[in-house]
Amino acid sequence: MKATIIGLGLIGGSISLDLKKAGLVTQITGVDQNPNHSEQALTLGLVDEIGQLTDIKSSDLILLAIPVSAMVKMLPGILDVVQGHAVVIDTGSTKSQICKGVANHPRRAQFVAAHPIAGTENSGPGAAFSGLFRNKTNIICEKERSSAEALECALKVFDALGMNTIFMEPEEHDRHVAYVSHLSHVSSFLLGQTVLDIERDEKNIFDLAGSGFASTVRLAKSSPDMWAPIFEQNAEYLSQALLEYIMHLQRFQYYLMKRDAKELHKIMTEANRIREILNGIELKQPKSTSINKQA
Amino acid sequence: MKATIIGLGLIGGSISLDLKKAGLVTQITGVDQNPNHSEQALTLGLVDEIGQLTDIKSSDLILLAIPVSAMVKMLPGILDVVQGHAVVIDTGSTKSQICKGVANHPRRAQFVAAHPIAGTENSGPGAAFSGLFRNKTNIICEKERSSAEALECALKVFDALGMNTIFMEPEEHDRHVAYVSHLSHVSSFLLGQTVLDIERDEKNIFDLAGSGFASTVRLAKSSPDMWAPIFEQNAEYLSQALLEYIMHLQRFQYYLMKRDAKELHKIMTEANRIREILNGIELKQPKSTSINKQA
Repeated sequence: MKATIIGLGLIGGSISLDLKKAGLVTQITGVDQNPNHSEQALTLGLVDEIGQLTDIKSSDLILLAIPVSAMVKMLPGILDVVQGHAVVIDTGSTKSQICKGVANHPRRAQFVAAHPIAGTENSGPGAAFSGLFRNKTNIICEKERSSAEALECALKVFDALGMNTIFMEPEEHDRHVAYVSHLSHVSSFLLGQTVLDIERDEKNIFDLAGSGFASTVRLAKSSPDMWAPIFEQNAEYLSQALLEYIMHLQRFQYYLMKRDAKELHKIMTEANRIREILNGIELKQPKSTSINKQA
Repeated sequence: MKATIIGLGLIGGSISLDLKKAGLVTQITGVDQNPNHSEQALTLGLVDEIGQLTDIKSSDLILLAIPVSAMVKMLPGILDVVQGHAVVIDTGSTKSQICKGVANHPRRAQFVAAHPIAGTENSGPGAAFSGLFRNKTNIICEKERSSAEALECALKVFDALGMNTIFMEPEEHDRHVAYVSHLSHVSSFLLGQTVLDIERDEKNIFDLAGSGFASTVRLAKSSPDMWAPIFEQNAEYLSQALLEYIMHLQRFQYYLMKRDAKELHKIMTEANRIREILNGIELKQPKSTSINKQA
């Protein structure tokens, strides 16, 4: 099986490494609009060769790992030109607009809408590494719109990455990730900006910052090229999550200004329940926690 | 030199371990109002023996590692009963109210107001470990109010912990830590609560949470007993920081609802500057980055 990976950053590069390792594909061609990324990906051995978009005609498997805005634009054209048996899989962090964009495409059945949930705050081919996806959750949306062959191929790909695949509708996906992924990125970006702002007046303020601060603003290092389109596409659900977050912050501030330590204590005790959940994330194992909502 | 450590949690326990290791003290007595903590501290070898508050009369060095509300209440009484040459050091995360509370105490010169900035999201004697403070920043406030002997003793203590000590006024300290420590704790607690809230309606939402989410809400596991009094004492500066954070979040939401990806991109690019600062925190070395504001 010959594969083409479009987008050779953290996600595309890491997928490529593990597909090669698993022996699922015989040849991987990389495509990236940035010539520096292409060259770096080749040098790092992420892909076997660099190709052009037109080369996808001879591929059996095409994986897209590009910003979600580019995904929506390019996907119909890609489905136009692929072989009759080829499978196209996207890896975007939003699913509604991507699915809508190809809903009526004659080759919709060759496409699998996926979101392998993994990443770091780093980006580009240099950030790619083998094992990024191991024991993480992958979501496939509208599985009934993909052919049995395409779905089977996609499951083989995500199995090779060591992922646990669950199924969900696009709107449900977008609502959920707004809370557990997109909101924490926004919270981190803006916390970073708030403290950077104050730093203009308060020199050396960061000498006082410790590991707790570092952990909380780590995601503020993430790529704006990747995240701006995600936020734009998931604006409705993210905005809802953001309003709830702001409401909680304002409620906290109200008790803070009242010096109501008892109420502040109560809010924090409730939030402490996150401990069990974080333990769960750390212990996450591939198959044992599988929740297959539709299958 | 005989030392007493009051409060045998993460901070008190970790200090004790490193003071013993450095050989700075010959005997460490531990005091904790919770008998389980005392027993655990003794079993874990954090202290040599368990004592009572009245025992501090025979100590040369008394270190307080208790919630800041208890610190304000207990400190005057402790200074009342200690030996004439004994040094009392606090480790509270707020400094203004603690300093005000003993401003007119006849033994003020025997007290050193300190804040060794280190910690984890865990608490209690079981969370203590050797090396917690290594290469971290310690702040001493109102150093001119401490006697030369007391200050020298305190610097020896924090040197033994491997810390880099800087000097600052209490108000300046409280304003700075509101931004680089207290605000990130609030942001994390409330992010945790927002997502826990939504989980009531959306089952299994946490199957989708990854390492990014875990990093951002890690501090929501922190002890409410410790943090509620800190927030109460630093309410003014924390509230200011919180308002700025909320303002940034609302501004972001405004551009989100306008689907203004360009403006969102710009905000995130600005926040990306946090990368250099986080690199700085990771590389922090004890003496090389010393910024001694008053000495």
